[in-house]
Amino acid sequence: MLDVCLDPAMASEITLQPVRRHGVDAAIFFSDIFVPIWLAGVDVEIVPGTGPVIASPIRTAADVAALPVLDHDSFAPITEAIARAVHELGCTPLIGFAGAPFTIAAYLVEGGPSKDHLRARTLMHSDPKAWSALLDWVATVSGAFLRAQVLAGASAAQLFDSWAGALSLEDYRQRVAPASTRALAAVRDLSYSVRDSVVERTVPIVHFGVGTGELLGAMHAVGVDVIGVDYRIPLDEASKRLGGAVSLQGNIDPALLAAPWNVLEAHVIDVLERGRSAPSHVLNLGHGVPADSDPAVLTRVVELAHDWSSVRS
Amino acid sequence: MLDVCLDPAMASEITLQPVRRHGVDAAIFFSDIFVPIWLAGVDVEIVPGTGPVIASPIRTAADVAALPVLDHDSFAPITEAIARAVHELGCTPLIGFAGAPFTIAAYLVEGGPSKDHLRARTLMHSDPKAWSALLDWVATVSGAFLRAQVLAGASAAQLFDSWAGALSLEDYRQRVAPASTRALAAVRDLSYSVRDSVVERTVPIVHFGVGTGELLGAMHAVGVDVIGVDYRIPLDEASKRLGGAVSLQGNIDPALLAAPWNVLEAHVIDVLERGRSAPSHVLNLGHGVPADSDPAVLTRVVELAHDWSSVRS
Repeated sequence: MLDVCLDPAMASEITLQPVRRHGVDAAIFFSDIFVPIWLAGVDVEIVPGTGPVIASPIRTAADVAALPVLDHDSFAPITEAIARAVHELGCTPLIGFAGAPFTIAAYLVEGGPSKDHLRARTLMHSDPKAWSALLDWVATVSGAFLRAQVLAGASAAQLFDSWAGALSLEDYRQRVAPASTRALAAVRDLSYSVRDSVVERTVPIVHFGVGTGELLGAMHAVGVDVIGVDYRIPLDEASKRLGGAVSLQGNIDPALLAAPWNVLEAHVIDVLERGRSAPSHVLNLGHGVPADSDPAVLTRVVELAHDWSSVRS
Repeated sequence: MLDVCLDPAMASEITLQPVRRHGVDAAIFFSDIFVPIWLAGVDVEIVPGTGPVIASPIRTAADVAALPVLDHDSFAPITEAIARAVHELGCTPLIGFAGAPFTIAAYLVEGGPSKDHLRARTLMHSDPKAWSALLDWVATVSGAFLRAQVLAGASAAQLFDSWAGALSLEDYRQRVAPASTRALAAVRDLSYSVRDSVVERTVPIVHFGVGTGELLGAMHAVGVDVIGVDYRIPLDEASKRLGGAVSLQGNIDPALLAAPWNVLEAHVIDVLERGRSAPSHVLNLGHGVPADSDPAVLTRVVELAHDWSSVRS
């Protein structure tokens, strides 16, 4: 998996496939939240059917202090993959992405996927200094990964905090959110020189987690433009919690992709209609595409969304 | 695991151990939510490190229609285990328990533990009739299991809907809650004859799920007396959502059992203090005891709670 992510021709090709096949309005960069961690020198393997497995879990202040320093030049294959994909995409935007500090740190502490992230949440409270240093390290590495994608041409940046829903609001606000803000500082109000001129760019930032209905406001306060919503709460409720002022992304229930078309169709239209309560809404799934999904169904959902938009506009 | 649950001497001995060792104020019956399903004739095995594995997952209306009929006499080992435990416990109450229809049905459809319960949630929407028939079957079996425990002497009944947090409020209300109400009807306002006299008994009913902060009101409306709260929301917030009128159970964060004592102590006192916002509060963990917990820490938590209560009362 990591090898494919670091092969620019493969990574850009896989990035383009959903656009070609389904006619979606944006591409998302094909990569993995562990790519920058691996490039920084942490021994991680993506095991099929299991997920990321860390050879030496990070469990003490000494482990955190011994984390390697990222060499930004190692992002060359990422930069090349993005440049290739952007070139092929033409005017279709590319969304860059990175894992958020909490989700990546939880893997690093646990050593792999876990149900309740107990060890990570224990460290958070047992040794807040080591925890905060770990999150800052991840924020630096993940932020640099996201920045490399934007500098190479990505039009938007998405931060995935898949596991933030395991946290109480207080733990999220006090012990997680500051690191996410720090990671995103790397792509906020970019100003850099290309040859002799200074380029200023602002890209929209999307923030997503699973089961985070209680955290939406705090996830927005991290400093983002769009909040991703899973399938658990409807978009009109999410918009209400965000004061009606924040753009949303989501929230098709992946379980319904395998339901009869009339059931899925009614659900997608319901999501689209409720999405109108937000200033704007990017339609997508409320969580990952199930591995056994019928690709033809995804194409049909895209067509339905386009038909709905053309009638509405 | 199932063999141990069906050995009355073993099941009652394990039920008593935490009371002897930690001095807790109530025992919870040692069993498994799959005991009644197995007794009804479904081929299920509790695989160590994995959980329940169903030999033939239930995925169609025909599978549901072919589910076996429970023979109530098969509960004899449960009744005996409860009677033994109640006898040994003296005036310490015993809490009976059963799995809720959604959580058990999700296992039956998936064939085992799963992350997003996609197949179960697909069936819920694809074939609502088969789904509802499946939940009614589980409600009958699980309700009978709970009833057998109460009739044998349990002083309270707890319904575990561990996975309800995977559902939207609407799905919970429409497609799950009615079956939970049906299961609990088996232990509500019990009236039965012992020799020549009619016995009327009412036991308090506790309802618990993980990540169910959004569902507390709906879980109460199922018809219960106490709501269990995991560690994600504080008890004062939970009480507020329930109109300040519902007794609560929970919500020590299991991750803190491995933290230094001063951190855990502050957390337990915070939970106790916030629990005072409810009419009453049963202190326990907000989720299961982690396998590597130090039993001495659990004993110390119980002592702390008793000290706190004696000062408060």
